[in-house]
Amino acid sequence: MNAGAQSDAAVFPPVIENAAAGGRAVIVCEHASNHFPARWGDLGLTPDQARAHIAWDPGALGLARGLARRLDGVLVHAPVSRLVYDCNRAPDMAGAMPARSELHDIPGNAAITPEERAARTAAVYVPFHDGLHALLMDRIARGLHPALITIHSFTPVYFGTPRAVEFGVIHDADETLPRAILAEALARTPLRAELNEPYSARDDVTHTLRLQATPYGLPNAMLEIRNDLIATPQAESAMAATLAPVLAAAMAALTPEPAQ
Amino acid sequence: MNAGAQSDAAVFPPVIENAAAGGRAVIVCEHASNHFPARWGDLGLTPDQARAHIAWDPGALGLARGLARRLDGVLVHAPVSRLVYDCNRAPDMAGAMPARSELHDIPGNAAITPEERAARTAAVYVPFHDGLHALLMDRIARGLHPALITIHSFTPVYFGTPRAVEFGVIHDADETLPRAILAEALARTPLRAELNEPYSARDDVTHTLRLQATPYGLPNAMLEIRNDLIATPQAESAMAATLAPVLAAAMAALTPEPAQ
Repeated sequence: MNAGAQSDAAVFPPVIENAAAGGRAVIVCEHASNHFPARWGDLGLTPDQARAHIAWDPGALGLARGLARRLDGVLVHAPVSRLVYDCNRAPDMAGAMPARSELHDIPGNAAITPEERAARTAAVYVPFHDGLHALLMDRIARGLHPALITIHSFTPVYFGTPRAVEFGVIHDADETLPRAILAEALARTPLRAELNEPYSARDDVTHTLRLQATPYGLPNAMLEIRNDLIATPQAESAMAATLAPVLAAAMAALTPEPAQ
Repeated sequence: MNAGAQSDAAVFPPVIENAAAGGRAVIVCEHASNHFPARWGDLGLTPDQARAHIAWDPGALGLARGLARRLDGVLVHAPVSRLVYDCNRAPDMAGAMPARSELHDIPGNAAITPEERAARTAAVYVPFHDGLHALLMDRIARGLHPALITIHSFTPVYFGTPRAVEFGVIHDADETLPRAILAEALARTPLRAELNEPYSARDDVTHTLRLQATPYGLPNAMLEIRNDLIATPQAESAMAATLAPVLAAAMAALTPEPAQ
């Protein structure tokens, strides 16, 4: 839980951990935080809503942190709730500052003026992506051949319907890394893993991949873990131990090898 | 000529003119300047080489400025020679910091270390694209539906061969705006206009379009004007007067209309 852990600055660049990592993996967590900066208040949410999956991806940050550590990768995560601004959405997408999420109205997002859309975009979205971009460009320039992997969690029950999938691997234009991750997960773990579940690129969930990886030809994948499997720090750590060898094997099959 | 006109700061964000423009056009000129900041010296070039088309796109900035004014568009241009860093190239492309350009060796680029590649990337490329990105995101958030048009010039003789084309319209993934511009140019002007000449996306010349427009679905085009047609301020202005109605007509045919 990150609520209250950050200062309320004018802009909210991403938190970067393990910046000097030598591995290829750049692990990104756009929905790491359920922090609501004072500037936007609680958007009219109840405390329960502000703790629920509509505000963030519970467990995703802990898992991402464990993966970055085990893979010697960098970790980049957003410090603000996705209900203030969802950094995995462009500024003109409805989901960027959603008026409704699953069954819940978001009162503070019901009538956002163009000026407020621009202000949130400038304060949250632009600094997040600039920070990630600068990090990727530095690694590309140094010949480190980064691979971009975004980490998300999903709720086991959505609109009242249980979800059986446990581990979703989602691709955008380049299927190489996602298909390798899926194959390794099926071979190495007992997880019920599926391609493009519970979401796919058609649901506009691959914005970060399209923006940060595709223009540079970087290997990329979006991973979705059912959040009941990463509901405690111990479970996050265990899942990181399960998935790190999967990602390592999938990245090892990529070409080119990093220049080191 | 921009040599010496800029201060030698640690980073080189783009110059933005007419920032409050109300029109859709965001005019970009990556090769506007032949300025060589003191930090990198003259890269071992002769004064003639530093004034030649290998260092910048002569005439492009004047034309771009005239177009922005006539179209009520924003102008975004790079303040550093493309031989220091070509902002229309990703950091791992050979052309980003070229060791050779047409017939000329670039001594200062002959043996660039990974650290120096990263330093130039951080000082020139990243600030340029962050500045353009922030501007585009602000316009998207406000519902202004920006259209991205990059302005380049090309030499009439390349590797000893004369070029007959006068006006090249280059597309990347989305052909809509480029094909409309070509049709309007053929209908409204005496220019010898061609699609994807003298370069095309296969030559890696559409990086800015791929990075800044494609992920957001923005209409986009790259324009190339033969530099003997814009060799004086008067000629730049006359070409802007010729091409502004072409671009205005092509943009007017786009959907959606800007929300105003």
